[in-house]
Amino acid sequence: MMSFDLDNITKPTLLLDKNRCLANIQMLSQKAKKSGIRFRPHFKTHQSATIGKWFDSFGVTAITVSSLDMAIYFAANGWKDITLAFPVNIREINRINDLASRIKLNLLVESLEVVNFLEMHLRSPVDVWIKVDVGYHRTGIPWDDQQRLKSVARRINQCQKLRFAGILTHAGNTYHAKSRDEINSIFIETKQRMQASADLLRRFGNSHLQISVGDTPCCSIAESFEGVDEVRPGNFVFYDVMQLHLGSCNEDQIALALACPVVAKHEQRKEMVVHGGAIHLSKEVLVGENGQKIFGYAVELTETGWSRIDKSCFVSSISQEHGIVRTNNEFFRKTKIGDLIAILPVHSCLTVNLMKKMITLEGEEIEVMR
Amino acid sequence: MMSFDLDNITKPTLLLDKNRCLANIQMLSQKAKKSGIRFRPHFKTHQSATIGKWFDSFGVTAITVSSLDMAIYFAANGWKDITLAFPVNIREINRINDLASRIKLNLLVESLEVVNFLEMHLRSPVDVWIKVDVGYHRTGIPWDDQQRLKSVARRINQCQKLRFAGILTHAGNTYHAKSRDEINSIFIETKQRMQASADLLRRFGNSHLQISVGDTPCCSIAESFEGVDEVRPGNFVFYDVMQLHLGSCNEDQIALALACPVVAKHEQRKEMVVHGGAIHLSKEVLVGENGQKIFGYAVELTETGWSRIDKSCFVSSISQEHGIVRTNNEFFRKTKIGDLIAILPVHSCLTVNLMKKMITLEGEEIEVMR
Repeated sequence: MMSFDLDNITKPTLLLDKNRCLANIQMLSQKAKKSGIRFRPHFKTHQSATIGKWFDSFGVTAITVSSLDMAIYFAANGWKDITLAFPVNIREINRINDLASRIKLNLLVESLEVVNFLEMHLRSPVDVWIKVDVGYHRTGIPWDDQQRLKSVARRINQCQKLRFAGILTHAGNTYHAKSRDEINSIFIETKQRMQASADLLRRFGNSHLQISVGDTPCCSIAESFEGVDEVRPGNFVFYDVMQLHLGSCNEDQIALALACPVVAKHEQRKEMVVHGGAIHLSKEVLVGENGQKIFGYAVELTETGWSRIDKSCFVSSISQEHGIVRTNNEFFRKTKIGDLIAILPVHSCLTVNLMKKMITLEGEEIEVMR
Repeated sequence: MMSFDLDNITKPTLLLDKNRCLANIQMLSQKAKKSGIRFRPHFKTHQSATIGKWFDSFGVTAITVSSLDMAIYFAANGWKDITLAFPVNIREINRINDLASRIKLNLLVESLEVVNFLEMHLRSPVDVWIKVDVGYHRTGIPWDDQQRLKSVARRINQCQKLRFAGILTHAGNTYHAKSRDEINSIFIETKQRMQASADLLRRFGNSHLQISVGDTPCCSIAESFEGVDEVRPGNFVFYDVMQLHLGSCNEDQIALALACPVVAKHEQRKEMVVHGGAIHLSKEVLVGENGQKIFGYAVELTETGWSRIDKSCFVSSISQEHGIVRTNNEFFRKTKIGDLIAILPVHSCLTVNLMKKMITLEGEEIEVMR
């Protein structure tokens, strides 16, 4: 039940369905618990100390972030075990040292240069994970490049300040998958490749090495997490239209919607113009079944949140402040200039990063890191 | 000459070449002066009070913004004549009233509903412009819909608090143009259509009506602004890779570059990973000559700013924090992990909106509206 007054909303405002968000957190934390592995959620999606606290009651003590700024923010908010899931940026060594002296900081390495640099300049010990590429080809050591894996591992083991914790990957290629089956296959392949890499390194004296995997599609669709030691999904906390298209979630799990004022209507083309554009939603786009671009689905605001998706109602184009919403006859007819409608975002991480604030359906304001 | 130390840059940082920016402002303000028309630059690109001040010395006293928040910000920074170039959002009437009591506020209308609402609820007089659609089909009354133009105009004239100032368009279809000639043709057509609409309305007792046009491509390429009363370009202040591709600018006019730390190198694919992703550059993308996606060009930082574009060096994919930079052999060889490189953004408006801060090559920090 929405307990604050929509009349108070005058401009683009990001609404959060807290119950859905909590259900998403519960679902993944239970799955991790059942598999007996560590749940280290990625906090880059919400970037919020308040939402971070919601994870407490599910027993979460270890988190993932994507930048040093974010690590510092969450450390300041009480988190003591943080993985910075981005290749170490050696230019930030002073702030890394400061943070590493205060919390258990886990860093990602993939080159001898960076390992050497850390050994020279680190002042406190850190855990390091070798970033492995299992097929996404964004970054990391290719899982089958045994020479490079072994040489980086050997160098880590020689370093006083580096504790070699394990190998870590992000199978972001799931975002190009065409079906749940394909995502499942990618997860199976990811685990096989990570196990092969880990086995190789274990044979060379690193028997304790752990395996860490990420990505919301795999973690949402996999029945169990057997075969890995930790999972680091982030997007699941809110999900979004992209995850819906991938089959990672159903629409009742989408926890965010951008409330947008309608400012113009165009009868002939059944389009409405809303205040809600690229600086609110981001320019993340999907291609629909008929080849049309989709920058979000348009739904009605209701007493309890928002209505179900009708695929004929979507944001078809976007500029800095404008969203152009294509609608069906009924939606067009019943919506008036000055009304609020809701847009389900394509990519919730980018939308939250732009909006910097959410409001729950109960009226609680949720601040995001700045 | 860059007079601050790049060594101090540890994370993605937006660099501004102030001399180029001033030259861009001078170029367009002179063109407007020569044509004897009003230069009302759009401040949504820089969103900065400091950069706003730079326009003072070019005699600019009237500006354009894209949101009420932005209008309030610039009013607080001394601007007294502001066009809010977005269809009136009637939910914001209280703040509109507050602002209209303090400055000359110019609003855009395109429907009887909104005109009626304003007459009922406005407390101070405002100038209104009818938003006309000359072919972009984002919003506005179609230029050849004589009935709607006349009926909205008639209603405006009946309203005590509305001063009917003119008709206004944004020919955003220039962004789909394939050549400078096509942009020029769109500008000629835009002027013809706006003149036809204005002539129609002038025949019905609005002899004083003015014509306002916008968009950086037209304003950059047109030799003169004869035939209109004001121009409202915004992007020209920095330009970007999109404008370069359109032919609106040359690369020596691009005034912004994102300095990014290199965090990984992948020899086999001649790719580098930088800290600099969708939350810094935005996901705005261009399609290059060979069909590849371009999220920005990668250039070297130099003593005086940055090097010239080599089209073989570009950001080929982007995620929340990562930029994947495809390079040529030489660029790859000479760039080391921990170095800074510069990315010329595809869409400077969105990059500035995300970064919220720039630093000039002289080391001056430029704050952006929050």
